[in-house]
Amino acid sequence: MKKDVIKKRIRAIRRELNNRNIDCLIVTKPANVTYTTGFLGDDSWAAITKGKVYFLTDSRYTEQAQGECPDCIIVERTSLMAEAVDKLVKKLKSVQAVTVEKSLSLADFGALKKHVKARFKSVANVIETIRSSKDGMEIKTIEAAALIATQALEKTLRYIKPGVTESELAGMLDFQIRKLGATSSFETIVAFGPNASRPHHQPSGKKLKQKDTVLIDFGAKYNGYCSDITRCFVIGRPTAFYKKVYDVVEQAQAAAIKIIKAGVKMKGVDAAAREVISKSDLPVYGHGTGHGLGLEIHESPFIKVQSKGMLEAGQVITIEPGIYIPGKLGVRIEDDVLVTEGGSRILTRKCPHSPLLLSSKR
Amino acid sequence: MKKDVIKKRIRAIRRELNNRNIDCLIVTKPANVTYTTGFLGDDSWAAITKGKVYFLTDSRYTEQAQGECPDCIIVERTSLMAEAVDKLVKKLKSVQAVTVEKSLSLADFGALKKHVKARFKSVANVIETIRSSKDGMEIKTIEAAALIATQALEKTLRYIKPGVTESELAGMLDFQIRKLGATSSFETIVAFGPNASRPHHQPSGKKLKQKDTVLIDFGAKYNGYCSDITRCFVIGRPTAFYKKVYDVVEQAQAAAIKIIKAGVKMKGVDAAAREVISKSDLPVYGHGTGHGLGLEIHESPFIKVQSKGMLEAGQVITIEPGIYIPGKLGVRIEDDVLVTEGGSRILTRKCPHSPLLLSSKR
Repeated sequence: MKKDVIKKRIRAIRRELNNRNIDCLIVTKPANVTYTTGFLGDDSWAAITKGKVYFLTDSRYTEQAQGECPDCIIVERTSLMAEAVDKLVKKLKSVQAVTVEKSLSLADFGALKKHVKARFKSVANVIETIRSSKDGMEIKTIEAAALIATQALEKTLRYIKPGVTESELAGMLDFQIRKLGATSSFETIVAFGPNASRPHHQPSGKKLKQKDTVLIDFGAKYNGYCSDITRCFVIGRPTAFYKKVYDVVEQAQAAAIKIIKAGVKMKGVDAAAREVISKSDLPVYGHGTGHGLGLEIHESPFIKVQSKGMLEAGQVITIEPGIYIPGKLGVRIEDDVLVTEGGSRILTRKCPHSPLLLSSKR
Repeated sequence: MKKDVIKKRIRAIRRELNNRNIDCLIVTKPANVTYTTGFLGDDSWAAITKGKVYFLTDSRYTEQAQGECPDCIIVERTSLMAEAVDKLVKKLKSVQAVTVEKSLSLADFGALKKHVKARFKSVANVIETIRSSKDGMEIKTIEAAALIATQALEKTLRYIKPGVTESELAGMLDFQIRKLGATSSFETIVAFGPNASRPHHQPSGKKLKQKDTVLIDFGAKYNGYCSDITRCFVIGRPTAFYKKVYDVVEQAQAAAIKIIKAGVKMKGVDAAAREVISKSDLPVYGHGTGHGLGLEIHESPFIKVQSKGMLEAGQVITIEPGIYIPGKLGVRIEDDVLVTEGGSRILTRKCPHSPLLLSSKR
């Protein structure tokens, strides 16, 4: 991670901490630790004070941290994390209160209160809110992650033929993502036929049949950043009904993407997609229309019926309406969209929609 | 999940709740929810009272829960989880206090306290402790997960040849696990040459060379249960030093496994492995000697220098000593071991150690 990128992030976080009168934030959520320090490993915390960023890790990660964290004071702990925080806080004489993130567990918070003699406060969504608008490096990395996912899907297409199981196809896609130097950003969903009516279907031993339909929801994680794509296929010619459903979902997605720009109400984007489906007399999906993505596969902002607030330039969100008819079919189309001042840019644009629908030469 | 298995677990949990004077436990940790209800999906909680088990989920999972949870009252929530808990608690008039698991986040606990008018308590490791001793079904499932991992490794062996990258090899192993109807139980570690000196190395684009060494740490998750295996390979003949290190690690592992039986002190098992290495003048590993595994890849008990307490029959633990020399090599051998009254049984015994070491015909 470049030092100036981290420095800029820390400045933004310090401004926010200052607004909230926080003089020492203990960062414990893994994605927030990565954002704050550049570290891509596990089991480590950071502490942000007015003057310094401390990185608390153990011997397994010290070497990695020295390479990845250009702007931190690395503290190698040899005992409990709470004891390491205690040692640190004792050194930081001017700290009024230690503030923890609300994602911390009661158990970890209890250990901190036991070992650290300090006043404690807790706070939610400080770093999450700052992370939600991406910088140029982050946008490039998400775009690279989207391209890897797209290339992996292309290489997987020839395995989509009668007899393959959902599990095998998911495994082949994960393998292609690995071959391209990334990992899957979440557990790949592959659903054949009616299985696609469950948005969170887990790939099974079910075999693909002639004239079957396929839904694949997948993504690559590259240099810490996630992409997230859903595509649907038909083996042979789709039925008229499937084609109708597919077209409505695609129109719903286009309607939402069309109105995206900085300053637009999030619930308006959500409503734009739902309206197209409800006008078609097909059932409207029960899940949200989209979510932010970056270091986490699901992060702020969340685009749903109850959303409050407006989109901001630099946010990267999925737009993923669907139509689900239990026992019959499920169609979802999902792309990753960068919000800009004047509109949007689709970061997954290299992954085609429609040619994949009619893959009849199998 | 069979109804009588779940009933037996609930009886054990209720006995423990009774001992601790808990009349309503809200189960939030995913593995504990699975253990208590049989449910294999996400985003759901359970509530155990003296007479009933409630399962709180949303519309995405209701159908799945009806199939997987034979002994629960399924409550489909349409609003916040905390609001669903509030509705439930209002019905349960005799409840004195609502007890949550300490793995809960401060944010979720805050939401509960905001929405639910009740006295709250928190508790750690109630279900984790009960889960640590496995029943017959669980042992069989872990053994099946170990066999899948073993078969997947066998199928991956022919890809271990000069030119392959760490990432590709990890991906191929994951693919073979998927083909066998399971998923990887954690992010597969593949480390070539000196990369193996970092116990948590992340597979990279590094290519395998002639005479190189390979460490693979992997496992399958099958029907919810994990296996965890580490094996080391050499392309061609190992150097005398590598062979020596390998032999010492294998002896250290054997020394620990030899003394395992119900009633033995955990720190004694840990010490048995370390002693073999320290006598050899090679560096003793910094991590623990092993950990429990089951619904989680790392769960109670933990076998390390600081361990307190004794092994119990039915526990399944890894034994995984290693020797790490930065810049030079890393060797770790890991098997999954069932603790019995009279000794132990190696659940990964079908995955050979030594033939893999000397795979010279490549």
